[in-house]
Amino acid sequence: MESRSGTRSEDGWLILSTETHFANAHLKVVDVEMRTPANPKPRSWTIVHRKAAVVIAPMTRDGKLVLIRQERLPIREQIWEMPAGQIDDDVGGIADPGHSPPHPTIEAVALRELREETGWELAEDGQLIPLGHYFTSPGFTDERGYFFLARPVQAGTAGHAHDASESILDCRSFSPGELSRMIRENEIRDANTLSICARLIGGGYLTLAPNASP
Amino acid sequence: MESRSGTRSEDGWLILSTETHFANAHLKVVDVEMRTPANPKPRSWTIVHRKAAVVIAPMTRDGKLVLIRQERLPIREQIWEMPAGQIDDDVGGIADPGHSPPHPTIEAVALRELREETGWELAEDGQLIPLGHYFTSPGFTDERGYFFLARPVQAGTAGHAHDASESILDCRSFSPGELSRMIRENEIRDANTLSICARLIGGGYLTLAPNASP
Repeated sequence: MESRSGTRSEDGWLILSTETHFANAHLKVVDVEMRTPANPKPRSWTIVHRKAAVVIAPMTRDGKLVLIRQERLPIREQIWEMPAGQIDDDVGGIADPGHSPPHPTIEAVALRELREETGWELAEDGQLIPLGHYFTSPGFTDERGYFFLARPVQAGTAGHAHDASESILDCRSFSPGELSRMIRENEIRDANTLSICARLIGGGYLTLAPNASP
Repeated sequence: MESRSGTRSEDGWLILSTETHFANAHLKVVDVEMRTPANPKPRSWTIVHRKAAVVIAPMTRDGKLVLIRQERLPIREQIWEMPAGQIDDDVGGIADPGHSPPHPTIEAVALRELREETGWELAEDGQLIPLGHYFTSPGFTDERGYFFLARPVQAGTAGHAHDASESILDCRSFSPGELSRMIRENEIRDANTLSICARLIGGGYLTLAPNASP
């Protein structure tokens, strides 16, 4: 049990105490008592801390997106999704990057995850475009994902992707029309992929054609 | 510590043992050892169980979307997002609804959360359109959200929204152009809102105008 009193973080947020219930290499469960800007009366909340992650939308020269098919144990399903990976805590400036622009090292993690998970890589004339960040489930976890568009990407020379954990089963590129259909038909159903698609569309990098593909 | 051997769930997924590390009313942390369809060799994984939720996109007769501004303790931020709420475990058929269509009772939860969180309600000629489900972070949690489009909605007669937990600070409607700008500029940054927007766009219910609004 830990207890910190009066740890002020930013405008009006005040942590009164924290109690750790469980921690391992992947997550940490804490009960936090805090004051908030809107509620001066202390409130208690159970929070799951997780490392931040990168989520990459790899776009080919002809506008397709490269997805991986991954086996996800917590939901017991195999799903098509954008490549992604966690940022190790020893990456500088990650602990609380706030609203600042992505640290260069986060971009290195994005390029590594792209290569390792898909076997594709940024073309020599390619750009890694930061698209902000998002929170996967801000009601219970501080997990945050940094979005990147990698454009254009090309198939790597090292052959097909194969990660150490053996969770990645397949990898291929999909047209915006196919992507539309997969989103509409619930085939794409993870927050990373759906959310980066919304960011790509809002930024004018992707257009989904609602009636494309049968 | 629990241990169940040979609990077969569906094609090729086999739970060999589970160990509970922490549980309260909001979440449960378990270590699971399982076989998967692609990996006959047993693997261990830490999973956070959470109740399923509903996420509602309330659309007005003139095509605006009603968002709430909510104080989120785990991320220490106030953000604009779609109304949402957890589905209590005692709602029939929720424990493992799989790919079946939403249970009628889930729709009742969606209508209740819409009313309670926004103060708006489905018009008499309105429809609650199911848009499938999604997973917030399938690498570590089974948390699942059911998407609904409520169209059209109208301001309720009971006055402004105000929930028991006092986390909701504001509520108003936004045009697709405003929504585009907020998504592009990282103002909208939670998985629920970004992901339901992708589903709305893929289904042809919403068009984001990348260059609308300054």
